[in-house]
Amino acid sequence: MFAHVISQLRLYQFQRICELKHNTKQMTSFILNFIGTSPTMNKKTSLKLFRAITQIFIQRNLNTANKPFKFPKFSVKNVTNTSQYLIIEENDNKSYEYPLIWLRDNCQCSSCFHKTSSSRTINWEKFSLNQNVRNLVHDQENRTINIEWDDDHKSEFDENWLIERNFSEENRVNYLNECYRPVKAPLWGKNDFDRILKTFDYEKVVGTDQGLFDWLDALSRNGIAIIRGTPLNRNECRRLADRVGFIRKTHYGEEFEVIAKEGTSNVAYLSSTLQLHTDLPYYEYKPGVNLLHCLVQSDSKGGHNQITDGFYVANLLKEEYPEYFKTLTSTLVNWSDIGEENGNKFHSIFRAPVIMLDYDQNFARINHSVPQRDSFFTVPLKNVNKWYEAMKMFVKLVHDETVVFKTQPGDILTFDNIRLIHGRTEYEDNTSNTRHIIGSYLDWDEIYSRLRVLRRNLKEKLR
Amino acid sequence: MFAHVISQLRLYQFQRICELKHNTKQMTSFILNFIGTSPTMNKKTSLKLFRAITQIFIQRNLNTANKPFKFPKFSVKNVTNTSQYLIIEENDNKSYEYPLIWLRDNCQCSSCFHKTSSSRTINWEKFSLNQNVRNLVHDQENRTINIEWDDDHKSEFDENWLIERNFSEENRVNYLNECYRPVKAPLWGKNDFDRILKTFDYEKVVGTDQGLFDWLDALSRNGIAIIRGTPLNRNECRRLADRVGFIRKTHYGEEFEVIAKEGTSNVAYLSSTLQLHTDLPYYEYKPGVNLLHCLVQSDSKGGHNQITDGFYVANLLKEEYPEYFKTLTSTLVNWSDIGEENGNKFHSIFRAPVIMLDYDQNFARINHSVPQRDSFFTVPLKNVNKWYEAMKMFVKLVHDETVVFKTQPGDILTFDNIRLIHGRTEYEDNTSNTRHIIGSYLDWDEIYSRLRVLRRNLKEKLR
Repeated sequence: MFAHVISQLRLYQFQRICELKHNTKQMTSFILNFIGTSPTMNKKTSLKLFRAITQIFIQRNLNTANKPFKFPKFSVKNVTNTSQYLIIEENDNKSYEYPLIWLRDNCQCSSCFHKTSSSRTINWEKFSLNQNVRNLVHDQENRTINIEWDDDHKSEFDENWLIERNFSEENRVNYLNECYRPVKAPLWGKNDFDRILKTFDYEKVVGTDQGLFDWLDALSRNGIAIIRGTPLNRNECRRLADRVGFIRKTHYGEEFEVIAKEGTSNVAYLSSTLQLHTDLPYYEYKPGVNLLHCLVQSDSKGGHNQITDGFYVANLLKEEYPEYFKTLTSTLVNWSDIGEENGNKFHSIFRAPVIMLDYDQNFARINHSVPQRDSFFTVPLKNVNKWYEAMKMFVKLVHDETVVFKTQPGDILTFDNIRLIHGRTEYEDNTSNTRHIIGSYLDWDEIYSRLRVLRRNLKEKLR
Repeated sequence: MFAHVISQLRLYQFQRICELKHNTKQMTSFILNFIGTSPTMNKKTSLKLFRAITQIFIQRNLNTANKPFKFPKFSVKNVTNTSQYLIIEENDNKSYEYPLIWLRDNCQCSSCFHKTSSSRTINWEKFSLNQNVRNLVHDQENRTINIEWDDDHKSEFDENWLIERNFSEENRVNYLNECYRPVKAPLWGKNDFDRILKTFDYEKVVGTDQGLFDWLDALSRNGIAIIRGTPLNRNECRRLADRVGFIRKTHYGEEFEVIAKEGTSNVAYLSSTLQLHTDLPYYEYKPGVNLLHCLVQSDSKGGHNQITDGFYVANLLKEEYPEYFKTLTSTLVNWSDIGEENGNKFHSIFRAPVIMLDYDQNFARINHSVPQRDSFFTVPLKNVNKWYEAMKMFVKLVHDETVVFKTQPGDILTFDNIRLIHGRTEYEDNTSNTRHIIGSYLDWDEIYSRLRVLRRNLKEKLR
């Protein structure tokens, strides 16, 4: 039965569900509707079915993650227009509508579009909302659609170019998942960790485009990946970052050393327990990804890495404790850092909820840091106690879903600082063993940009 | 009559109105309520009154902008507690309530708080929601409030420390305006520009804390400031940025040269008209402030700077065309940049509306760029035409409110790239005159941090 279901559910549909709805009930309902199973089945059975399907799809998703995206093949049969739309019919009887105003805005002629910089140059101060077609020609030989507008301007659109930009839901979802940003899925709990954790060879990552792509793709989907076999030099984080774009600088500089020291201006530089947290929540532009290169690991019992998928926990909270979820997505907390680094004093503050959502109500960012949460709590008095109640549950769930491991010299632990929550257990240095980590940050803006360029390069190689 | 009104309206209240409600009607209604004028006065009169008051307050706001914030003087008369709150009564009979759980969370003892790093270190995995006071003592000699909790833990709170963190609305508004971020006010139209534009002397800005503070404070409030008398060297933007924090790097590097060149990957490097736009809207982490150092200005008729306050225009749209405002705050546009710089290919995309709002529905960011708006428009077909209609009106208003000027060699034009929209008129180079600008970016995270540190330093000097 599952095989039947799976053959019907296309990958992009699953990805869309994962991305748009981190909500078990809605996913179950969607899948049940899709396969037409009786909606009267009880909750337990439906959840079981849903989970089984999900697991298979997660696997398939991982296996096909690197497959370059291909736009569908097509052949245009007929082209017409109304007063507002151009209509293209394909041979398989699918049809697409394009607003005339969008077409005029995206005219590709040399006076409206600057090819070298891929930039629109049409003068928008004089742009008119009234765009009428005087003459429409479908040039089947050159596979172009040629429009003469009633202000005498002429536009020529390549069929492929138009089909790639069609406004169907399928195409929009494809674009978002394949061109915009890889789906942040699967969200994972403690028990899924061994299955989702991928490791990569340092030389392949810095030496080949495929290696670099594989690492960044896994990092963007799972939120974590470990690079092994890194030389024990201090500048390898920089070398790695330069392969992507450049290091994201903060008031702690471009590289930071995690090595126990007294009198520090940051608790991360103590050897005591580092409670589960996200780095630098006091930045509006919070660094996107941590690179933690282990040069020397502690021989003592401690020094373990702890990691939790914050989006997974946020989703648990949303499903099981919707009131707490509402509180943690709406109460603005003051995250702050006061200190000095290399003679430069800083006092950073950013106000944001613990769980941030984007315009589509997807999880956008987790902020959590016991040390960097300010004692100034700028909310109405009546909101304080209920925030603590919600936060207590969130922290409990975070701890319930924490995985523990210990990186080894030569490992670079890389993880999504927007999504994951990390910590470190207490350790002890001694005269012959001083734990030593070099860290740097990367921003997602640069990572996604590199992924898009790499995807295109690798796709072209396959042709 | 105005004098009477002004003496009653306290600055922080005005700032709050400016910050929370960029809405003429609500402001008018607030002020009318405040002074008790008949609410039956007609719209024209009420707007006239409102505008007159606003102008006087803008002036006062500017004049008092540099005054260091002082927490109110007080003296604690009585301290009690209920099962959930600590209550402090001042001698002037004001009283403040503090949630017990917040107090326990913010215990300042050395096991709960690490002073050197100003960081909370209390173990939140074991933190309890049930916090009960066993014994409460008001130590009037040391001006501390001492709590013994029923788990034997003891906390000592300084009276000042508590009063600074009181949960009253007045205190919260003060904190947000004075400690968090200066109010982005006044919003300004074309006719206000001469009044709000401030110029600063380069040597004072880079050489003195007061000069640096004055520039950054004006920049943060007005969104624009010009620094004059800068040496005609290529590295002065860097020197200026280093005074604040550090240059914000992008895929174009740390410094960019605006000098006409053919075959460029960015239309900004052409000498033709540069339409009104914000820089790099395709970055989720969009650079916060532009620094444009004029080394050589064009002798030709063109090369003028054009600037519009995007928040002012967004506010006009909100008041006059609420449906358009709704469309431009909710329709996600794909901003993108494809190109190559120094051998590094990039393909950046960020999806965001033209007008972005924050959690309090304040204006948070303007995205506008004809060249960098992607031809992929990933929205349902039915939303396309209405977006164009709204955008056309927005662009019209932007042009209506544009100011035009021409920086001179030695000027560094600095402006808020999150809020302001800028452009440049077409110009012509010739053999003896090649327009030459050096540009860099700063991020608001670093600017606000520097402002907080400077404010504290300057305040301490005044003591």
